[in-house]
Amino acid sequence: MPRFKLTIEYDGKNYAGWQKQVDRVSVQSSIAEAVFKFCGHEVDVVGAGRTDSGVHATAQVAHVDINKDVDAFKVMNGINFYLFNPNGKEPSQEDENPTQNRIAILKAEEVGEDFNARFSAIRRRYIYRILNRRPRLGLEAGRAWHVVEDLDAKIMHEAAQILVGHHDFTSFRDTQCQAKSPEKTLEQLDVQRIGEEIRITTCARSFLHHQVRIMAGTLAMVGKGRWTKDDVKAALDARTRAAGGPTAPPDGL
Amino acid sequence: MPRFKLTIEYDGKNYAGWQKQVDRVSVQSSIAEAVFKFCGHEVDVVGAGRTDSGVHATAQVAHVDINKDVDAFKVMNGINFYLFNPNGKEPSQEDENPTQNRIAILKAEEVGEDFNARFSAIRRRYIYRILNRRPRLGLEAGRAWHVVEDLDAKIMHEAAQILVGHHDFTSFRDTQCQAKSPEKTLEQLDVQRIGEEIRITTCARSFLHHQVRIMAGTLAMVGKGRWTKDDVKAALDARTRAAGGPTAPPDGL
Repeated sequence: MPRFKLTIEYDGKNYAGWQKQVDRVSVQSSIAEAVFKFCGHEVDVVGAGRTDSGVHATAQVAHVDINKDVDAFKVMNGINFYLFNPNGKEPSQEDENPTQNRIAILKAEEVGEDFNARFSAIRRRYIYRILNRRPRLGLEAGRAWHVVEDLDAKIMHEAAQILVGHHDFTSFRDTQCQAKSPEKTLEQLDVQRIGEEIRITTCARSFLHHQVRIMAGTLAMVGKGRWTKDDVKAALDARTRAAGGPTAPPDGL
Repeated sequence: MPRFKLTIEYDGKNYAGWQKQVDRVSVQSSIAEAVFKFCGHEVDVVGAGRTDSGVHATAQVAHVDINKDVDAFKVMNGINFYLFNPNGKEPSQEDENPTQNRIAILKAEEVGEDFNARFSAIRRRYIYRILNRRPRLGLEAGRAWHVVEDLDAKIMHEAAQILVGHHDFTSFRDTQCQAKSPEKTLEQLDVQRIGEEIRITTCARSFLHHQVRIMAGTLAMVGKGRWTKDDVKAALDARTRAAGGPTAPPDGL
């Protein structure tokens, strides 16, 4: 059965995260439903990463096996058609807001059976955005973490370098995290200020559950001057979730 | 009565545009309601520009007269508080999506009585965004115009220069436009490509009703190769709405 690699973008605000859930609409189940309508059989949509509810993606990777004689371009267009038109027909012109769908397939590529979105991924990259200003967020509500207190991006960046490298990240993973080992190699954790935005960019082969959000929450404590670099080092060494900083909201991710 | 200049941002998707409407929630009426709750008396919220439903703003300017002994910082915070908490109290932590409000006051400044947001404005600046790609929009749905056909930004920019300057813009205004004169001076109309985004930046003392959207729709025709620069010149000279290009959707503005 031909396998297709999908590159996907979504606004996670109205979804229960990536992973299929019993009662709520997830990104994965929305795509699986669209693929089913397109190819006529049930599919597993295997994602490279599981994002939390409210987390967005600009290039999530997944794969699906489709038992239909179609090329990759038709796969992309077909899935997008059913994502945006769940009833199988284009909405009429009068419909002002025809669909609440916020998922789009950016690219489909035929790949070999040895490709697996989950296990073949050699690098995952996340950007966490903070808007550091007094007024609440209008245009960017749900798309960034709103922090009022002044953040010092330079000190945040310095503290971030303590976390780069191979470490036991127990203090930076959710207590529900199911990964067998808390050891990960963090390749990049950069903090920069662009106007009122603080952008945290991070990269690793894989991350623990909530790791990016806990790192962001911890760095914000440093940026506010409430934690020092030594506090971050002590938190890492403590190897207990209670020692890490707070989990930043999903909005920024 | 002290007058305050407000700088406002909003995501226009869920509003009936700037202007107060009988049956639908507008940006203006939402702000007027929040100011009323804050200062206890009815106010006129006078805006520099009237945006259509679905159009966003990063720095709309307005003014209000507030009969209360408060400084500008309190005015900003007070209006924001009631915009985000229409019931007058902070939502509980359990509320996942406590408010649908997408309006924020970025700044309030006390100004003299001679300041009038509508008449004092010497320049209005708009950015119209097109995402020029095959896949539909997930993350940017409602925030940009989706155009599939290849657009040539260079030719669009050249054609745009025909419209710069003092002209009769009858072909580029809605037939419902109530401005006395169709003559306007367009100071800037630039088109640039940034990756898959085509960004149209325009600036003038004032614009006619739908002028920016009709200019964007016309330039898209040029970008697709269906109209030439001469067609744009002919449309301008014809001085009838029927000669202008289509009105681009509000999403991009």
